[in-house]
Amino acid sequence: MSAPDPQPDPAAGHAPEPGPRAPAVHYALGVDSGGSGVRIALGPVGPRGAPAAEPLTWHSPTPALVGKRGIDAAGLLGQVLPAAQRLLRQVGAERVAAVCVGAAGMASLGDDLRAHLPTALADALGPRRLALAADGVTAYVGALGQRPGAVVAAGTGMIALGTGPGTGPGDKRHGGWRRVDGWGHLLGDCGGGAWVGRAGLEAAMRAHDGRAGGSQPLLSRLEATFGPPEHLPGLLYPRSDRPAVLASFAPEVGRCAATDPVAAAILREAADHIARAAQAAFPHPPTTGQAAHGDDVGALALTGGLFRMGAPLVGPVRRELARRLPGVPVTEAAGDPLAGALRVASALAADALRLPVDGELLQVL
Amino acid sequence: MSAPDPQPDPAAGHAPEPGPRAPAVHYALGVDSGGSGVRIALGPVGPRGAPAAEPLTWHSPTPALVGKRGIDAAGLLGQVLPAAQRLLRQVGAERVAAVCVGAAGMASLGDDLRAHLPTALADALGPRRLALAADGVTAYVGALGQRPGAVVAAGTGMIALGTGPGTGPGDKRHGGWRRVDGWGHLLGDCGGGAWVGRAGLEAAMRAHDGRAGGSQPLLSRLEATFGPPEHLPGLLYPRSDRPAVLASFAPEVGRCAATDPVAAAILREAADHIARAAQAAFPHPPTTGQAAHGDDVGALALTGGLFRMGAPLVGPVRRELARRLPGVPVTEAAGDPLAGALRVASALAADALRLPVDGELLQVL
Repeated sequence: MSAPDPQPDPAAGHAPEPGPRAPAVHYALGVDSGGSGVRIALGPVGPRGAPAAEPLTWHSPTPALVGKRGIDAAGLLGQVLPAAQRLLRQVGAERVAAVCVGAAGMASLGDDLRAHLPTALADALGPRRLALAADGVTAYVGALGQRPGAVVAAGTGMIALGTGPGTGPGDKRHGGWRRVDGWGHLLGDCGGGAWVGRAGLEAAMRAHDGRAGGSQPLLSRLEATFGPPEHLPGLLYPRSDRPAVLASFAPEVGRCAATDPVAAAILREAADHIARAAQAAFPHPPTTGQAAHGDDVGALALTGGLFRMGAPLVGPVRRELARRLPGVPVTEAAGDPLAGALRVASALAADALRLPVDGELLQVL
Repeated sequence: MSAPDPQPDPAAGHAPEPGPRAPAVHYALGVDSGGSGVRIALGPVGPRGAPAAEPLTWHSPTPALVGKRGIDAAGLLGQVLPAAQRLLRQVGAERVAAVCVGAAGMASLGDDLRAHLPTALADALGPRRLALAADGVTAYVGALGQRPGAVVAAGTGMIALGTGPGTGPGDKRHGGWRRVDGWGHLLGDCGGGAWVGRAGLEAAMRAHDGRAGGSQPLLSRLEATFGPPEHLPGLLYPRSDRPAVLASFAPEVGRCAATDPVAAAILREAADHIARAAQAAFPHPPTTGQAAHGDDVGALALTGGLFRMGAPLVGPVRRELARRLPGVPVTEAAGDPLAGALRVASALAADALRLPVDGELLQVL
């Protein structure tokens, strides 16, 4: 959104360093900790807290451990601090102005991080400001920046998160974050990958049994993927990653949808669930009248691996969104959660963070 | 179905014992092994293999162990043999004519039983005949005897089993057993207790999130049962008995259905699934024309704890069954799986077993 700009941000209130050199560049550090590993990004802070240039990045495939005290701070720091110090040396800087750590499960599993990160990061990297964010928040900011609106993140699970103008932080309905679904494969995640895959496997087993409403094409895909249908329970139930196994069948539903009405109906129902979640997360759902007047109603971004299925799902989702949120632009996510974490850190460094800080999904220490 | 009759069954082909005494009474032993324990019933064999009097019964709350070799034969025998010998002494007999062991998981977990039961039972109880049956078969026979038809068993899970006139044993479509659903809570069991409970909890969480299609009454029941909705994932997912936890909410859906349209819709959809399963399991689904001619079309029995919910579920189920299986009488189950196991053993003792012996759901050794 802005050209690279090495100027320090006047809004951040830093005095320029003394001497004949050019004004100092401030750096922000974003951290994204999730099931597939830990990633960090270091980049210069531009005007109004926008990243000022392509960041340097580093990636470890080793996820942070989750133990009795939640996400293990020492293990995460053991990966992040040396890597961040190497990136700092690469850009010739000694400290960062702000850090944002985004982590899956931050709200419920972040106690150890909240207890140990402030001091450890201050000692090693010297940031003035530190933000701890749920991965939903970094996904939001990666997708939409600080614009109002909502993000639907659909992978194995499904969660929607929205924020926008309203009455202030802490008011979840109007001013804070609106978190919708994300309750896991037995209580919700409706329309997500495990939901779609399970519905597809159920329809396949209906065909296997000779029940009405079954799908022979999905049964063929089940047999090609898992073998004899009667052995599938023995394959699935002993595993600990059952939701991922279910979600692995979602692309088969997508492949069948063009010619199989049962598969197409599953994706229409998934799209309906996704649109309901987006509607509930979106701030101040506009009426058609408002939208017609050209108000800035915010944007909706779709993100996550499930949408790689493409038209069979994205088509129905866009149709349902047009019905439930008329006039709201639906966009591709501009960046990923790592970009979102860096963006939060940059905004924090520039005192330009406008997102609600609620102490749960987004916390500034 | 028949009056008590201590006469030996001529069809069984036993020679009456010599001497001046009355003709000997033959006894059959039924065993029902399931998750809630082990039960046995010993009763006299009547004409054509019908039980001739109320049996003596015994119950242990200790279920048979399931280990790497499946259901543990030694443990089951350790409970059954002494109890059966005590019951034999009570009736003044020394041996049984036939035994039927019905067990949950017999088809997939019965290898150890098939290996060890014949010899051990022969040594201790001396039966001429032994049948091993899946619990679905004993539920069928308990409910319908040897009549053609189908049984729907709905508790935490849901399975339908049917049999009837056709081309002979082993032909699953026409002459053998037709097993439908029972695939567990992630692949089917559609319309069962876990299915109903999960749908109810999903609707409650929709209301909690402000999504369209939620149910405020179900949300109130969730809060009364489990506490704050946002803590429910933490309560549910770590447990190993997740299906039972889901099913524990099914009665709440039943309680709300009279006044809550969302709960009522869940039970209508469950009823549709149950009726589809019954239709697929039923032998030779009659056309309306056939039924009008008064053919014996067999019967359908509903059994299992879910139907204790009563009218909110049974009403829609009967309506759906009338639509999918017109003319088929829907009956209460006459007896439970233990009665079914005893009935199979009695029929076997009298050489009057007419049910398909397929080596999987029902095996005679």
